[in-house]
Amino acid sequence: MSNPAILDDLYATILSRKGGDPDSSHTARLFHKGRAKIAQKVGEEAVETVIEAMAGTPEKLASESADLLYHLLVLWADAGVQPADVYAILEGRKGVSGIEEKKNRTQT
Amino acid sequence: MSNPAILDDLYATILSRKGGDPDSSHTARLFHKGRAKIAQKVGEEAVETVIEAMAGTPEKLASESADLLYHLLVLWADAGVQPADVYAILEGRKGVSGIEEKKNRTQT
Amino acid sequence: MSNPAILDDLYATILSRKGGDPDSSHTARLFHKGRAKIAQKVGEEAVETVIEAMAGTPEKLASESADLLYHLLVLWADAGVQPADVYAILEGRKGVSGIEEKKNRTQT
Amino acid sequence: MSNPAILDDLYATILSRKGGDPDSSHTARLFHKGRAKIAQKVGEEAVETVIEAMAGTPEKLASESADLLYHLLVLWADAGVQPADVYAILEGRKGVSGIEEKKNRTQT
Repeated sequence: MSNPAILDDLYATILSRKGGDPDSSHTARLFHKGRAKIAQKVGEEAVETVIEAMAGTPEKLASESADLLYHLLVLWADAGVQPADVYAILEGRKGVSGIEEKKNRTQT
Repeated sequence: MSNPAILDDLYATILSRKGGDPDSSHTARLFHKGRAKIAQKVGEEAVETVIEAMAGTPEKLASESADLLYHLLVLWADAGVQPADVYAILEGRKGVSGIEEKKNRTQT
Repeated sequence: MSNPAILDDLYATILSRKGGDPDSSHTARLFHKGRAKIAQKVGEEAVETVIEAMAGTPEKLASESADLLYHLLVLWADAGVQPADVYAILEGRKGVSGIEEKKNRTQT
Repeated sequence: MSNPAILDDLYATILSRKGGDPDSSHTARLFHKGRAKIAQKVGEEAVETVIEAMAGTPEKLASESADLLYHLLVLWADAGVQPADVYAILEGRKGVSGIEEKKNRTQT
């Protein structure tokens, strides 16, 4: 399943670890540490993604991006955000984007 | 289409803007500015995501997360990373994760 | 005064803008926007510093570092941290660092 | 010496570790790992500073800020930036800032 459904699948697994024994899984441990620690991990993985984008290989960038996505999904699960909420925003912007681009054309 | 396929769909649109007139779209302008600027945007959107996770509403976190994902897709497109590369890594880790968790159990 | 006293001098100026009319200065406007916005600026300037360190000139790194330090001083002023508090921590670690380094030597 | 001179003092110590045995000190090890790793540490400490600013105590913010400053000094030393270069920029902006603020007043 090398397709985007892995994100929903992973989110479901992550959600199932919420409130679990911190010793039983890395994800349960992250939830146990709380919002600040999860947000910190997202920020740190983003920094690593930026570094790999500047100095690494596409392989390393893909690997750090996977770490970033995983921690972002944990953050969403902790905060009550559903992946579908984010997909809907991206979907909604596709329409707006056409208008924005027309504006940009006239502005420039 | 409030499903993860929006990511592949958005990636295809982003890719089609590569090398396009910087005045014609926001995405073409990002490609024109180059890798450092795109990576900077990923970092900045991650910072905003962290801030909203700490102090905002789930709605704002979802909105900043969408910005982060969009810029991450542009970074992948610029660096020659396919979304499927990242999905494959996440998929591959699901298996490893079981092993890791067993190790963690014995460690703790 | 190209010496570190500029930091204390700048901190005093920044502190004097706290509670000032947001229209009167950039710094007063930052305080008015509040903690989350100031912290966001610190994060964003750090990202730009990282990017310049990877791809820019020493001049650009120095310039982004100055932006980072300015926003960090605003953050300290907002949170009630004195520069001397931070200097004292750095001073205190110099001693500890000798011990740590000895530990590292035996560890490695 | 709880005064800003600690920064110049610390910078001199850091510089003296450049090219040193990576096993002899934490700083020598950072230099040995190279620019990307040092820049990554600056980014990560900035993320922690942001998190403490949002959710921590002034004491923790001061402590993370000290970590951020230390790694920023290592980054400067690695890139050939002198602290005085950064102080000069901050000093130079004090003058410009008056002009900017006047502009801001008329704009608003």
